Amino acid sequence: MKKRWIRNASFITMDEENPFLTGHMVIENDRITYVGTESPDPATDWEEIIDGKNKIIMPGLVNTHNHAAMSLLRGYADDLNLQVWLQEKMWPIEGKFTSQDVQVGTSLSVIEMLKGGTTSFVDMYDHMGEVAGVVEISGMRGCLTRGVIGLVPPDVQQAKLEDAMSFARDWHGKANGRITTMMSPHAPYTCPPDYITKIVQAAHDLDLPLHTHMSESLAEVEDNVKQYGDRPVEHLRRLGVFDRPTLVAHAVHLTDEEIDIMKQYDVRVSHNPGSNLKLASGIARVPDLLRAGVLVSLGTDSSASNNNLDMFEEMRLAALLHKGISGDPTAVPAMAALRMGTIDGAKSIWLKETGMLKAGMKADFIALDADQPHFYPRTHFVSHVVYSASAKDVTDVWVDGKQLVRKGECLTLDEEKVKAEFTASYERLTKG
Amino acid sequence: MKKRWIRNASFITMDEENPFLTGHMVIENDRITYVGTESPDPATDWEEIIDGKNKIIMPGLVNTHNHAAMSLLRGYADDLNLQVWLQEKMWPIEGKFTSQDVQVGTSLSVIEMLKGGTTSFVDMYDHMGEVAGVVEISGMRGCLTRGVIGLVPPDVQQAKLEDAMSFARDWHGKANGRITTMMSPHAPYTCPPDYITKIVQAAHDLDLPLHTHMSESLAEVEDNVKQYGDRPVEHLRRLGVFDRPTLVAHAVHLTDEEIDIMKQYDVRVSHNPGSNLKLASGIARVPDLLRAGVLVSLGTDSSASNNNLDMFEEMRLAALLHKGISGDPTAVPAMAALRMGTIDGAKSIWLKETGMLKAGMKADFIALDADQPHFYPRTHFVSHVVYSASAKDVTDVWVDGKQLVRKGECLTLDEEKVKAEFTASYERLTKG
Repeated sequence: MKKRWIRNASFITMDEENPFLTGHMVIENDRITYVGTESPDPATDWEEIIDGKNKIIMPGLVNTHNHAAMSLLRGYADDLNLQVWLQEKMWPIEGKFTSQDVQVGTSLSVIEMLKGGTTSFVDMYDHMGEVAGVVEISGMRGCLTRGVIGLVPPDVQQAKLEDAMSFARDWHGKANGRITTMMSPHAPYTCPPDYITKIVQAAHDLDLPLHTHMSESLAEVEDNVKQYGDRPVEHLRRLGVFDRPTLVAHAVHLTDEEIDIMKQYDVRVSHNPGSNLKLASGIARVPDLLRAGVLVSLGTDSSASNNNLDMFEEMRLAALLHKGISGDPTAVPAMAALRMGTIDGAKSIWLKETGMLKAGMKADFIALDADQPHFYPRTHFVSHVVYSASAKDVTDVWVDGKQLVRKGECLTLDEEKVKAEFTASYERLTKG
Repeated sequence: MKKRWIRNASFITMDEENPFLTGHMVIENDRITYVGTESPDPATDWEEIIDGKNKIIMPGLVNTHNHAAMSLLRGYADDLNLQVWLQEKMWPIEGKFTSQDVQVGTSLSVIEMLKGGTTSFVDMYDHMGEVAGVVEISGMRGCLTRGVIGLVPPDVQQAKLEDAMSFARDWHGKANGRITTMMSPHAPYTCPPDYITKIVQAAHDLDLPLHTHMSESLAEVEDNVKQYGDRPVEHLRRLGVFDRPTLVAHAVHLTDEEIDIMKQYDVRVSHNPGSNLKLASGIARVPDLLRAGVLVSLGTDSSASNNNLDMFEEMRLAALLHKGISGDPTAVPAMAALRMGTIDGAKSIWLKETGMLKAGMKADFIALDADQPHFYPRTHFVSHVVYSASAKDVTDVWVDGKQLVRKGECLTLDEEKVKAEFTASYERLTKG
């Protein structure tokens, strides 16, 4: 039994019964067995004793919407609207992505996420076997899904669906349970209704949740009404999507009725404030969603539309943006943003054992260096984490009880090798 | 003659004739003497040769609105509206600030700013002699002003005005010209009209610019109309404020007519997007201001309402926010945000020799570590600096040709000593 002791640290636990303490945490193999102010017995046979002095220890962050391989397109096309950006910029070059490109793009993103304190992420992309392979080796937790675009002939549709199903079946529960899977129609505007119905049936057959983009831009909502007679929420409800557990990304443009339906069906929202601003998609009605009791988490979206994978920034944006828009400075307080980035992120992707530091939970946690000017005065740590911190304050990261980042260095993936391969991929993709 | 050579770096110069290059820069004493692709002669008697490999070299950032000592109140009161926050939280505890508190609070902020790549800042506060002393020792550039609140008896008003004048007179042009000064009525809502007139006269007498808070919240604008019959812009114009060179902070709530007046009088705006969101003050009409030709720069405001002094974040917010609000993804492109944070910041505070890397300019510049995942692919550097970077990517900082930060360490102020004194001040201020 590997026993480790984190001693004399400041903890933000996200456990409502015991939210903040200066004290100790004990890890046995992949689980937390103790969090509290009393010191454990120093005479125990400790595998490792970790000094928590000047550290904030908190649950790892959960990024609930990403397309990790798109790090290859960071900065490739900025300051364009969603449809132009997708159709004229992203899709043509993404069409050239090989499995190898997806593997290196994802690897770079996983290193960035891990070093920045993200311990679990959602990835929706193609060549998902490569993505799962990277996640397995990296030690990170991933909820992965092959996003399918259905604007193709029936035989290609069928092949994509089979690819998505076999990926989902093969990888669900793998890597000591760190990898889970979902089924994903890319969006209502990229999948004909009958194809969405087939994907829903596949999710029933495999007993998996669904993930999709929804109501990201106003144009998309208006087109949905024109083409199908309904706004996206009712459209997806009618197609049976919400009969499965569902996580939707964006959900920027919603009516009160749509929020009610989402609450009724327990549809979860991945709020992507940075991406929604950058693509000028708009600003999601987060305070209204929270008031209605909809589960809201945070996603970076890809680094082509963000352009980094810093979840502290998304927490801060979620906390700041809705104050400025609503005129209500009490909208989305720091603790609400921190919940979205941790425990509610975990719940949103059906992870019951992470997102909180508490005996019995999986040991997914991070350490921040709090001995820096922007963490002074050395109090109000929730405020500092949300309003002042950044990815680069993270020094150490553990997932499933295993240390993956030590003093800012990723222990499981070779950063220098990945950067060299990444540059080679980028040069090949953009040449000629 | 001290000659230094930065070799083989990637430069973002902000010089329109030569905006990007991979090459070399030469510094002689406090000035840049060469920026270009040709290597200077290695046989020159170099005082120092600095390897620019994997570095982005760019002008230092300019923070045009801050109250640096308020780092003591970081996290002290979040998620409240402006008037409650000021009157019930900030002002009572600020009333207890001693000169020593201002000195340590400012020191902590100066360390945070310098390490984060800010080379020039505006500070409006009290005990300004202490602030100037810190700026002098730190090597930073400061445009400093004693902000006066006039809601006091006439003799106190007069004493404050004299204090502001003697500070401004004593320190203007000091520290090899690194320190300049302004005169500052705190805001139209905290200074009676006749007091503002006196401050304007003082600015005429001393030949100094003016700085004030203006139109930060809607309530303040409405109160101004109720009390004085005019909105703040016309009110200040009528009081002669704009007959002096003027920098206003915030300018969130403006009509088209007010923007015209500001353009006509060349009134400069310090846009503080983070603070304006956090206090739910609203969102300034930055695209309209830019279209009208008003000079817009960026400020963090104090770390009590931000809550850090990371100017990369303000550039990113300026670039993202106005896209999301306007629905126009081309609003405030990356380069426009970068101009606000550098060259236009310098112009806003009447600095003619900084904000750009070009022969003849003062050597105020910073180095970023670009060999990190969030800077890959290694191209699109303006995009990466605005959309992906943070304060903690800065490794080295020079002001007036002198290196102030080396490998992330401040060379001029003792960070450990400052943190200890800061904690002592905070504990004394909040006890009992």
